[in-house]
Amino acid sequence: MTTNPLPTGATIGLLGGGQLARMLAVAAARLGFRSHVFDPDANAPAADLAAQTTCASYDDTNALIAFAQQCDVVTYEFENIPLNAIDTLAAHVPVRPDRKALEVSQDRLTEKQFLSRLGLDVAPFAEVNTLEQAQEALAQLGTPAILKTRRFGYDGKGQTRLSAPKDANTAMADYTNTPLVMEAFVPFTQEISVIAARGADGEVACYDPGENVHRQGILHTTTVPANVPTRLLGDGVLQAGRILNALEYVGVMGVEFFVTPQGLVVNEIAPRVHNSGHWTQNACAVDQFEQHIRAIAGWPLSPALRHSDVVMENLIGQEVARAPALAQESDVALHLYGKTQTRPGRKMGHANRVRARS
Amino acid sequence: MTTNPLPTGATIGLLGGGQLARMLAVAAARLGFRSHVFDPDANAPAADLAAQTTCASYDDTNALIAFAQQCDVVTYEFENIPLNAIDTLAAHVPVRPDRKALEVSQDRLTEKQFLSRLGLDVAPFAEVNTLEQAQEALAQLGTPAILKTRRFGYDGKGQTRLSAPKDANTAMADYTNTPLVMEAFVPFTQEISVIAARGADGEVACYDPGENVHRQGILHTTTVPANVPTRLLGDGVLQAGRILNALEYVGVMGVEFFVTPQGLVVNEIAPRVHNSGHWTQNACAVDQFEQHIRAIAGWPLSPALRHSDVVMENLIGQEVARAPALAQESDVALHLYGKTQTRPGRKMGHANRVRARS
Repeated sequence: MTTNPLPTGATIGLLGGGQLARMLAVAAARLGFRSHVFDPDANAPAADLAAQTTCASYDDTNALIAFAQQCDVVTYEFENIPLNAIDTLAAHVPVRPDRKALEVSQDRLTEKQFLSRLGLDVAPFAEVNTLEQAQEALAQLGTPAILKTRRFGYDGKGQTRLSAPKDANTAMADYTNTPLVMEAFVPFTQEISVIAARGADGEVACYDPGENVHRQGILHTTTVPANVPTRLLGDGVLQAGRILNALEYVGVMGVEFFVTPQGLVVNEIAPRVHNSGHWTQNACAVDQFEQHIRAIAGWPLSPALRHSDVVMENLIGQEVARAPALAQESDVALHLYGKTQTRPGRKMGHANRVRARS
Repeated sequence: MTTNPLPTGATIGLLGGGQLARMLAVAAARLGFRSHVFDPDANAPAADLAAQTTCASYDDTNALIAFAQQCDVVTYEFENIPLNAIDTLAAHVPVRPDRKALEVSQDRLTEKQFLSRLGLDVAPFAEVNTLEQAQEALAQLGTPAILKTRRFGYDGKGQTRLSAPKDANTAMADYTNTPLVMEAFVPFTQEISVIAARGADGEVACYDPGENVHRQGILHTTTVPANVPTRLLGDGVLQAGRILNALEYVGVMGVEFFVTPQGLVVNEIAPRVHNSGHWTQNACAVDQFEQHIRAIAGWPLSPALRHSDVVMENLIGQEVARAPALAQESDVALHLYGKTQTRPGRKMGHANRVRARS
């Protein structure tokens, strides 16, 4: 892989045009790059900030090839891009992070097997395709346990909590012909995430871990610094680094951990910029979006230092109505995504509350 | 003037598509707005970040009207927009800041008369249209003095320094049929500028004054906090507030002052976001670009607090070649404008070096 840094005016291709791509486009512009967004929706939030947009489906081979030919590097804002699309693109343009990262993280089973092989702690798990396997898994893992689809889960979707062995029947009925994985419930006290980056030359830099609080399966706040023993924070950074190196990863990755009395357990990895890294926009000289662009553009990484303490709060659905009030608070930096349709559970924006470093 | 805040998805019209409009477009997006850039140059730096662009001349009435009809409010990134264009637009859409601010600041003579009437100190000055007037002005103001075109000066262009009475002949020969103003030289020790904002409801907020160093007539660095007595800094903020209120101004204005042993002397005002306010991007929760968008969109202003110390350094012409090295410094936030042609004196980007607040 070349590490020649992309020059001013080069074009970054962004697969997916949601708010993550929107903020990536801004970061790309800050380094003098142009953005080209590929999204099936012509009104995707990132389209307004992109120099170019292609509105096409991810299985439109001709559109993918034309897009690839107009880009100097291609990246993505979500992990459920079909691998076929990546293969089509990769024949014409570097795709970073590459196929391997997507392959591992698109499938919860593959991901857990990969992390286990690395020697990292994950929740005990079992592959489940039949009711019989579900019952065996429950017997082995105990209750409570969580039945999850192997693919396409996000924000708490595609999972069912089982409290007793008898719940297997009902739960399995919801998932006809869907590859599943059963996970033991991890009795965690807190959740943290590490926003980690690896450059094209193999350099790794991690932001300070943030402490995450979820509501109804959706991230609610990230607080930095996390109120977690320093030793565990250091451990999270080291584990994230091992994951990135094992994948020869290029770009930013979000790694979520459960904090348990026995130490950290990896919850999941996301091969992209991550909602729990939005705090970096106002507490660091270089934020996660620019760090990702630097990595995929072959630029030097930032050491990811933090100059301030910060609490990021998501504005979900109707919560965006609080924006005018938040705008009046002196320490709040507001980030709205330009979505004109408010829907329950939809991420509409976020607010970073910045404080002097403690 | 209505103070109804513009809603998500509203369109901000930007006259001029240079780096200031580019950074305004990013700030507008952060508040959920769309940008529509109007510039005679289809490759203007802001075009890549705008949802829409109109490539037309400022005297193309039809293009101006069509543009106005697609915008909810129009603003500008430079003060040399023809007033006719503003009048055409203002018949269809609110233009903020309004005509008055442009009228005053487009003409150095009008500007100095306005500031004097407000009771603010400016360099002694005289209108000059003939060689005779130039000689009289020199006799009255003494040397050194500076002969300036009344209109279209920027970055040290359109001005000549006169060291002795005999220089009047040569200097005047350079400016045939050009309205001029002669200014006494102000023996200043430092230069500061105040980035001031006034909201649609009359609220005023000023950032901490920055200390400016110029090289060859172009801003080189802005340092915050300025190494200037607190009393003078407070005075600068108060004077800036008086200027904004007198103009019933809506938006951000840059006010430059000379620091002299006798106090502050207003050098010039710019009715727009200002190069000496770029430091706010990395030292404040809300930067000057967002502050300007908030003002013209009828949103509440930020109190413009600063969380960090900072030095902004412009990257002029070939200095942009330092970008890769600057990107390696842990406390530097880099901002490149995406200009692929480097020319001497051209503003290519800037770097904000952020430090913990002293």
